[in-house]
Amino acid sequence: MAQELSVVGKRLPQPDAAAKATGGARYAGDIKLPGMLIAKIVRSPYPHAKIKKIDKSKAEKLPGVEAIITPEDIAYAKGFNRGFKDIPMMASGFVQASDEHILNDKARHIGDGVAAVAAVNESIAEEAVELIEVEYEKLPAVFDPEDTMKPGAPQLHDYAERNIAKHTPYPFAEGDVEKGFAESDLVVEGTFRTSKQAHCTMETAAAVASFEPDGKLKVWSQCQLAHLCRREIAHIFGLPIGMVEVINPYSGGSFGQRLSICAEPVAIALAKKTGKPVKLVYSREEDFTALETRTPHKYTIKMGFKKDGTLMAIEERIVTDCGGYGARAPMTAAIFMALTMGHYRCPNRAGGADIVLTNNTLGGAFRGFGNPAGMWGVEQMMDMAAEKLGIDPMEIRLKNIKKVGELTQGLPIESTALEECIRIGAERIGWREKREQQKETGVERRGVGMATMSHCSGAAPAFLEHSNAFIKLNEDGSANLTVHPGSPGTGILGTLSQIAAEELGVSYEDVHIVTGNTDITMFDIGSHASRSAYCIGNAVREAARQAKGQLLERAAKTLGVSPNELEVKDRRVYVKAAPDKGLSVAEVAWGAIYDLTGNCLNISGKGSFIQTTYSPPTQAVFAEVEVSTETGVVKILKLVIANDSGIAINLNSVEGQIEGGALQGIGFGLTEDYFTNRDSGVVESDNFDKYRILSPLDLPETEVILVEKPDPKGPFGAKSVGESALVAIAPAIANAIYDAVGVRITDLPVTPEKILKALKEKEKPKTSK
Amino acid sequence: MAQELSVVGKRLPQPDAAAKATGGARYAGDIKLPGMLIAKIVRSPYPHAKIKKIDKSKAEKLPGVEAIITPEDIAYAKGFNRGFKDIPMMASGFVQASDEHILNDKARHIGDGVAAVAAVNESIAEEAVELIEVEYEKLPAVFDPEDTMKPGAPQLHDYAERNIAKHTPYPFAEGDVEKGFAESDLVVEGTFRTSKQAHCTMETAAAVASFEPDGKLKVWSQCQLAHLCRREIAHIFGLPIGMVEVINPYSGGSFGQRLSICAEPVAIALAKKTGKPVKLVYSREEDFTALETRTPHKYTIKMGFKKDGTLMAIEERIVTDCGGYGARAPMTAAIFMALTMGHYRCPNRAGGADIVLTNNTLGGAFRGFGNPAGMWGVEQMMDMAAEKLGIDPMEIRLKNIKKVGELTQGLPIESTALEECIRIGAERIGWREKREQQKETGVERRGVGMATMSHCSGAAPAFLEHSNAFIKLNEDGSANLTVHPGSPGTGILGTLSQIAAEELGVSYEDVHIVTGNTDITMFDIGSHASRSAYCIGNAVREAARQAKGQLLERAAKTLGVSPNELEVKDRRVYVKAAPDKGLSVAEVAWGAIYDLTGNCLNISGKGSFIQTTYSPPTQAVFAEVEVSTETGVVKILKLVIANDSGIAINLNSVEGQIEGGALQGIGFGLTEDYFTNRDSGVVESDNFDKYRILSPLDLPETEVILVEKPDPKGPFGAKSVGESALVAIAPAIANAIYDAVGVRITDLPVTPEKILKALKEKEKPKTSK
Repeated sequence: MAQELSVVGKRLPQPDAAAKATGGARYAGDIKLPGMLIAKIVRSPYPHAKIKKIDKSKAEKLPGVEAIITPEDIAYAKGFNRGFKDIPMMASGFVQASDEHILNDKARHIGDGVAAVAAVNESIAEEAVELIEVEYEKLPAVFDPEDTMKPGAPQLHDYAERNIAKHTPYPFAEGDVEKGFAESDLVVEGTFRTSKQAHCTMETAAAVASFEPDGKLKVWSQCQLAHLCRREIAHIFGLPIGMVEVINPYSGGSFGQRLSICAEPVAIALAKKTGKPVKLVYSREEDFTALETRTPHKYTIKMGFKKDGTLMAIEERIVTDCGGYGARAPMTAAIFMALTMGHYRCPNRAGGADIVLTNNTLGGAFRGFGNPAGMWGVEQMMDMAAEKLGIDPMEIRLKNIKKVGELTQGLPIESTALEECIRIGAERIGWREKREQQKETGVERRGVGMATMSHCSGAAPAFLEHSNAFIKLNEDGSANLTVHPGSPGTGILGTLSQIAAEELGVSYEDVHIVTGNTDITMFDIGSHASRSAYCIGNAVREAARQAKGQLLERAAKTLGVSPNELEVKDRRVYVKAAPDKGLSVAEVAWGAIYDLTGNCLNISGKGSFIQTTYSPPTQAVFAEVEVSTETGVVKILKLVIANDSGIAINLNSVEGQIEGGALQGIGFGLTEDYFTNRDSGVVESDNFDKYRILSPLDLPETEVILVEKPDPKGPFGAKSVGESALVAIAPAIANAIYDAVGVRITDLPVTPEKILKALKEKEKPKTSK
Repeated sequence: MAQELSVVGKRLPQPDAAAKATGGARYAGDIKLPGMLIAKIVRSPYPHAKIKKIDKSKAEKLPGVEAIITPEDIAYAKGFNRGFKDIPMMASGFVQASDEHILNDKARHIGDGVAAVAAVNESIAEEAVELIEVEYEKLPAVFDPEDTMKPGAPQLHDYAERNIAKHTPYPFAEGDVEKGFAESDLVVEGTFRTSKQAHCTMETAAAVASFEPDGKLKVWSQCQLAHLCRREIAHIFGLPIGMVEVINPYSGGSFGQRLSICAEPVAIALAKKTGKPVKLVYSREEDFTALETRTPHKYTIKMGFKKDGTLMAIEERIVTDCGGYGARAPMTAAIFMALTMGHYRCPNRAGGADIVLTNNTLGGAFRGFGNPAGMWGVEQMMDMAAEKLGIDPMEIRLKNIKKVGELTQGLPIESTALEECIRIGAERIGWREKREQQKETGVERRGVGMATMSHCSGAAPAFLEHSNAFIKLNEDGSANLTVHPGSPGTGILGTLSQIAAEELGVSYEDVHIVTGNTDITMFDIGSHASRSAYCIGNAVREAARQAKGQLLERAAKTLGVSPNELEVKDRRVYVKAAPDKGLSVAEVAWGAIYDLTGNCLNISGKGSFIQTTYSPPTQAVFAEVEVSTETGVVKILKLVIANDSGIAINLNSVEGQIEGGALQGIGFGLTEDYFTNRDSGVVESDNFDKYRILSPLDLPETEVILVEKPDPKGPFGAKSVGESALVAIAPAIANAIYDAVGVRITDLPVTPEKILKALKEKEKPKTSK
C-alpha cells in the first residue's frame, strides 16, 4: 500500500492480555452479586421422552432451595430459537423455528432441560436436582438423519413433517446442471459425512440474570450477538427491548457456540421467580450435551469437468442433522451451499438440503459454519477429478479459481491472492518433488496433499451486516471507542484499537475500548461470519475519520491553514508542507474541550457500516503426513499455510488465528470424535477423557505465510482470518493421506480405525468384492 | 407555553426511586472487588503540628496489614487542590492553590491526614491506625480569621503572606460607590457572620481504587465533577488522563461537598502500593473534620438608598475563612460577591474579599455557594433600610428588583417572575395584615418576615459550562441517553429523561440513562451551580432533537411526505395535517436498524451545550414565627415559598428540592451549629448528637407556590432549583424574628442563647450602655 502506516501492521499485545494473564479478567462465572443464587438444571437422561409428572416436594423442603421451576411454572414464556427466531438478512428475513422452550415438557435429546432449581449455593442446588423426581414416558428415538425421514419414524415436532425441519434450496443456483454434466468429459460423485465437532471453549456456558428494582433486566451473557440476544430475551419474557440490558463480560472462547443463547433463559426465569440475581454455570458434561456442536451433514456431491480440468457443474444433495430442535442448523446448511463454490468458477450449480430433526444433541454454528463441511468434500473431489484427468491437484485448482471481479453469491470478489498462496505454498512444501517421487511401500508411508478455500469477511449479501461505532477524544488526546464486538477472545479489541489509532494519528495505547453493554453501544449485529475486523473495523475507521475531521478543522484554525493542508500522525497534527509547524493532538483536544472563548467541542465521531461488498480471505494449505499402515496413525510432518487475509492489522493476532485454526482443523480432521451410544442416545464422549482436543503442544511444524495484498474495501486493506483458518486443514490432510497410502476417508474424523479398515478393504482382491 | 407537553411538567417518579427504596442502589461503600483491602487514615489530633517522625514498625507487624503510607512514601505524588487546581472559566482560567498533599507532613487542622493503612479488613485497619506512632511537634494555632492576618500570627503556608491565601476583588464592580453613598439619603451598614454548616450527606465520604492489570486506574468516586476529577487524579499521580476511569456509583447526597475529591487520593496511593483494590470509607467524625464545611465569612456591608427606597450603592468587605488549605473557599468568596446583587438593581458596587488561612477545618462549596452567606446580610439590610425609610419591606424590594433584560454579571436576565413571587407570596402569608397588626407583648410573640433571592442556572459567564449528551434509539423505540450528571441524588436523572422523552415524542419510561463513567460519557464539567437541568438539559434536548430529525426523515420517506409535515408524540410519528396517517416510533427505529435494503441507521444524536445566557431562578420567602422571650426558642408557624424556576420539568423534583432546601435553610438559620474548642481546635460537634440537622418531620407548615413562567433559553422553559431553594430561608426567618421581638441576630445560627442575650441587651436602659 502507498500509505505509510504507524500502528496497523504491527505486532502488538492485546489490550486485555495482561488482564487475562494475571487472572484479572472477569468472566460470566466470576460475576458475584449481592444475594445471588446458584442455579442448576434437571436434564433428561432419555433422548426422547414425555414428562409425565415432576415432583418437587422433596427438593422444596431442602433448606437453601429458593425456587424450582418446571415447564408449567414458566408457561408465560414464549417459544424461541436459541439462534434467534428472526435473523435480519438483506432483502428478506430468515425465520428460524421457535421450537424450543426454556424448559421442555418433552425431552428431545439427552440433556434436554426439564426443570431447574435456584439455591443459595452450588452444592444445595446440586442436591436439589437429585431430589426432583421426574416421571418420564420414554418414546422411541431416532438418531440417523436418513431414518428420521422414513415413514413410521417417531415424530419430534408437529411443525416438521417427516421430521424435516426445513428444506433449503440451493442458494445462488446457476445454469443447468444436467446440461453441465452432459457437456462434461468427467463426472465424479462422492458421499461425505462430517462430524459433531464440539467447541470445547475453555469456559463452559454461563449466565447471570438480575432484575433491577425498577424492573429492568440485566443479563451477563457470553453471547457474541449481544444486540440480537437482547431482542430474543425481550421476546421470550415479553419485555420491552429497552428494559433488557445485555452485558458481555470477558468470554473464554466462542468459536460460534456463543452465537446462541444458552444459560440465559433459565437464569432469567429463576431470577424472575425469586426476585434475586441468579447465576447458572454449566458443567463440562452439560456443555457437551446441552449445547450445539458443529452441525453434521451427510451429503453427495456430483461434479463435472472438461478434460482440461475446467469445472462445468456441481450438484450438492445434503441431509443435515439438527438434533432435537431447529436452532441454527438450517442456516448452517444454507451457508454450506452458498460457500462451496466461493473460490471456484462453476457455471452450473444446483442442489438442496433437507435439515432433519433427530434425537441427537443439537447442531449449530462452529467456526467456518458450513464451509469446513463443504470443503471436506469439494477439496477431496477436486483431487479425485485431478487424478482421473491426470492433472496435478495444484493445476486443477489454479485452472478453476476465481479472479478479482468474478462473482460469489452475486457479489464481485474485491481481492484475492489465492493464486499466489497456492504457488508460494507449493514451493515451500516442495510440492512438485514430493508429489512426483515414487510412493513408499514400507510400514510408514509419506504423502503430501493440499486444499484451498475462501471464506467471507462478513456475511453479505446474506446477513444485514450492520455495525456502529462511536469515538470521543479525551483532553490528553487519548480516545474512548465505544463499539460492540464484546470480548470474544479473538483479538478483535486490539485490531479495532489499531484501526482507530491509525486513522486518528495517535498511539495504540491511546485508544481505550468501551464494549459489551447493549445500553451503551449502538446496534451491532455481533461477531459472526468473520466480520468483525472488516465490518466493525470499517465502522470504527469511519468514526475515527469523523473525529479526525474535527481535529484537523480545529487545528487548522489555530495554525492558520486549511484542514486539507494538515496531516496527523504519532499524536501530532502538522502542516504537510512544513512538518515543523504543528500541534499535539492533546493540545487540540484539550483546547477544544476547554475552549475559553466558549466555542467548545468534545471531538467525536460516529461511524456506521453496512456491508455490500465481498472481500474473501483465501488460503492454500499443504500438508505432509506419514501414515502407519500398521496402526493407521497419521503423523503430520509439516503444514504450510499460505494465507490471504489482505493486510494484517496485527501480525500477532493474524498468525495466532491461523495457528489456532490449524490446530482446530487437525482436531476436526483426525482426533475430535463426538460419539453417542446408538441405542441409548447417551453421549459417551462428554468430557476430555474421551473427546480429544489438541493443545498448542500438538501443533506440528507449521509454516504460516501471509500473502498481504490490500483489499480495496477492508479497513486499511484488511480481510478476515478468524474462521478461514480452519476450513482447508482437514481436506488437505485427507488428500495427503490418500497420497501416502492410497485410501480416501470421507467420513470425519479420520481415525486410525477407519484408515486400517480402508487399507484392508483396498488390499482385498477385487474378486472377493 | 404554546407547546403542548406530554412528559415535561408531570409528576413522575425518579428512575432510581425503586433502587433507592429497596436497597438495590449501590453506593461507593457497597463496592466489593476481589481481594479488596480496607483503608484507614491516621489523622492529626492537633490543629497545627509538624510531623517529626512516624513509626510504622508495630503496625507493620500486625497480621493483615498490607501497606502503610506516610508523606515520604508518596513523595512522587504532586500537590493538588481538592477542588481542582485549574477551573475552566470563560475567558480565563481560575487557578486554585495546589497547597494540599495526599498526606501532609505538617498538619494544618484537626483531622488532617498524616498516614494511612490498608489491611484485609476494617478492624485490622483500625487497629493498625492505633499502632502507628506519630511524633508531632505542636505549633501555635490560629482560629480567628481576623487574628490570622495579624503580624506574628503563625504562618500556615509559604505562599500565603499574612495567611492571606487570596485577595479577590469585587467581580463586575460598577459605578463609583463613594459617589453613590454621597448621593444616598440613607446609608446603612451591618456586619454579619456566617457559619460552618456541615453538609451531613447521608453517605459519608468514600472511594474505591483499583489498578487494572493493563495499568489503567479505575476509581469509584462520589465526585460530582467526574471529568475534572479524572483530570486532577491524573495530575496527582502523573498518569495520562485516558488511563484513569472515574466511575460514579449512586451518591448519598452531595450538596456541593462532592465538588471536591476527598477519599480518592489515599485509596489510589494504597492501591498503587499494594497492587490490590482499596476501599476507603470515612466515619461520620471524619466527615465532620476532614471534609470541607460551608465556607464561613465575616463581612461588612454598606448600602446607600434614596428616600423612596431606591438602592444607590453597595460595598462589601469580606473576610473568608479557608481553614488550613485553600480548597474552594476563594471561589466561594468570588461567587458571594458576584451574586449579592443578582436580583437588585444597584448602579454603584464595590468591595473585595480576603480569603485567609486558619487552623480551622476547611471551608468549601455548599448548596448556594456564597449566595446564602451574602443574602444573609443583604436581605436583613434591606429590612433595616426599609424600617429607617418607613417603607414596607416588600415595597423596597419591589422597587429595586431587576426586570428581564437587565444585567447580572454582564449578562441580560432572560426571565424573572420575582415580582409575581413577591406579590403572590405576600398574599398567601397575609403580609399586610400581619405586618400592620399591633406587635404582641406577651412571652410568645409572633412576627412575619420575608426575603428574596436569585441564583443561577449554571455559572456562566464565570465557568465554562460545557456539557455533552448522546442518545441512541433502540429497535423498540426506547432510547439510551448517555450523559454525565452522575447520580448526585438531585432528581436530575428523571428530569433529563423527561427532556429527552418530550423532545423525541416517546414516553418517560422509554428513556434509559447511562451515566457516571468518564470512559463512556463525553465531557461534562459536572453538577455544580444548579446547572444540570439547564445546561445538561439543553445538551440532552439537542441530542434528542438530532435523533428526532433522523426519525422524521426516515418516517417521511415511508409516509411519502416531507419531514416538516410530521410531528412525533406519544411514541407515534404522524402527519400533522392527517393525524391518522403515521407510524410508531418503534416501527421507524426498528426499520432503520434492520433496513433490509441495506440503508441502515441506528438513529442517534449528539448534543452539546455551552452556556452564554443568564436565566436566574428567583424566590420570595415569607416566614411567620413565634419567638419565646423566655427561652429564646423560635417556632416557625408557616413558610410561604413562592418560587420561580421557569417551567417545572418534574413537579415532584422541583417541590422536593424546594422543601429540602427550606429544611436545610432552617437548619442553617437556627439549629446547625458547628463549634470547635477555641483553645484546642477540636471539633466538638462532630456527630449528630451535637450537630443538629433537621429531618423532614421538622418541616413546618410550608406552602410552595410555583410561579411557572417559561424561560426562553432553558430546556422547555426550565431554570434551576437545586441551590436557590436554600438561599432566602435564613434571612426571612431573621427578619420575622425581628418583626416579632425587635432583635436582629447577624451571626449564624440564630440560637435561643443569642436571642435571649440580644433581648437582654435591648431591654437594658440606654444609660447603662
